[in-house]
Amino acid sequence: MKDFTDIETQFSQIKKEVQTLKEGTKDQVSMVVFSGEMDKILAAMIIATGAAAYDMKVKLFFTFWAIASLRDPKKKVSGKKLMEKMFGMMLPKGSGKIPLSKMNMGGMGTSMIKSIMKKHKVASLEEMFRTAAELGVEINICEMSMNLMGFKKAEMIDYPAMTICGVGTFLSDAQESRIQLFI
Amino acid sequence: MKDFTDIETQFSQIKKEVQTLKEGTKDQVSMVVFSGEMDKILAAMIIATGAAAYDMKVKLFFTFWAIASLRDPKKKVSGKKLMEKMFGMMLPKGSGKIPLSKMNMGGMGTSMIKSIMKKHKVASLEEMFRTAAELGVEINICEMSMNLMGFKKAEMIDYPAMTICGVGTFLSDAQESRIQLFI
Amino acid sequence: MKDFTDIETQFSQIKKEVQTLKEGTKDQVSMVVFSGEMDKILAAMIIATGAAAYDMKVKLFFTFWAIASLRDPKKKVSGKKLMEKMFGMMLPKGSGKIPLSKMNMGGMGTSMIKSIMKKHKVASLEEMFRTAAELGVEINICEMSMNLMGFKKAEMIDYPAMTICGVGTFLSDAQESRIQLFI
Repeated sequence: MKDFTDIETQFSQIKKEVQTLKEGTKDQVSMVVFSGEMDKILAAMIIATGAAAYDMKVKLFFTFWAIASLRDPKKKVSGKKLMEKMFGMMLPKGSGKIPLSKMNMGGMGTSMIKSIMKKHKVASLEEMFRTAAELGVEINICEMSMNLMGFKKAEMIDYPAMTICGVGTFLSDAQESRIQLFI
Repeated sequence: MKDFTDIETQFSQIKKEVQTLKEGTKDQVSMVVFSGEMDKILAAMIIATGAAAYDMKVKLFFTFWAIASLRDPKKKVSGKKLMEKMFGMMLPKGSGKIPLSKMNMGGMGTSMIKSIMKKHKVASLEEMFRTAAELGVEINICEMSMNLMGFKKAEMIDYPAMTICGVGTFLSDAQESRIQLFI
Repeated sequence: MKDFTDIETQFSQIKKEVQTLKEGTKDQVSMVVFSGEMDKILAAMIIATGAAAYDMKVKLFFTFWAIASLRDPKKKVSGKKLMEKMFGMMLPKGSGKIPLSKMNMGGMGTSMIKSIMKKHKVASLEEMFRTAAELGVEINICEMSMNLMGFKKAEMIDYPAMTICGVGTFLSDAQESRIQLFI
């Protein structure tokens, strides 16, 4: 290190490196929400709303079976092909209809859990989606899964920050997140 | 950059930024252990004890079905309400009783795996919990799940670093961890 | 800060710290691929090939049930013990044989998804493994699981970067990765 010019050069370089590191670790949570069961989506939404309440940025990537939890039971879309209609009928219509991964017992276990949740003042999935919306949690839906299952955005619940996009969006979000989970 | 004072100011600022970055990435693993199956909890505990053996700090957040694996079959708690008693009966009582996620075949597959594990000197879940305790792995249990299922801390296995807490604890642990997993 | 020598010392220290931080966060994805279902392995491979296409380094750690998806149906290994033969028969033989986690319906749902994937030009698992190989995705297979299930490397598909190794390899890969997932 010979003189001030040299110091300045080195300084600006190290500053740039620190800046890159800082950008690489935003206070952000990225989750792939893959599973369609009520308990798993509940876990995802508890983590999501919890993190958002602690002022973290939260980005969810709904894919495969989890997308069914975002369907609005009151909305209908016409012009579907046979296969798409079949998927539409076989998959649960919205967060009120999805079963538990265990102890579902023909819906009895699921009802039991819901009544206990109510008693303990744990928010239902419907309420959690509303809270998540208020807290600015972003919901991205996997385009490929939407196409495969024949779902349209018009069938999904009203949600302010909902986008249909590809896995690339998840990857670039996850890359700059502190926490990444696959649920 | 005019003089030494200026250099000092810039130095102390960049040092602070590097310090913040360092604190953001502790050599720590945070896991949500959600699933109640033997194979999944085994995977979680192999990663946990492995990481602890490599001198990483490990914090597990047991929630939902996974909590049943921490029940001590020898302990009993009185004064439970009807619903809580039902959960107590329906969920497996401890790590010796939890089934495989696949090939359970009425318990036959699970016994088969256990006997093969023994033959290959792979530790059982019971032994893994003991090793984890010795290695300082922290077990946090989700308070909300405990309340919903009516479980009490007094029913859980003896474990030195076991705390009942909320999702906020997981989030702040995960935020400063290098590795986060949802199992 | 008294003179140039002092500045140099501090500079070299802060540079070292920044270097350590940079090494701690490679543009790398580490995934534990645990589940054996077609949809979950598909999700893992979509993320893996997507990340590799974006020039990230990708390291997969196949363990437990997921290993069955790597079996080559055309390869046979002799000299297996009874238990190992039983596992060989009970577990699916390769990515073409693994079922969906939901709506399998005796294979009908799985065939339906495959035909829809074809129609939408989504690559099959077989094709994804080939793409992953071309993109340099590394596949590590859990040694302990291989031993427990009696699988040999000679039964696995031809894949250029395939290694049998322990959980320690996953941990050190994950430690320096930006993204870690358990699927």
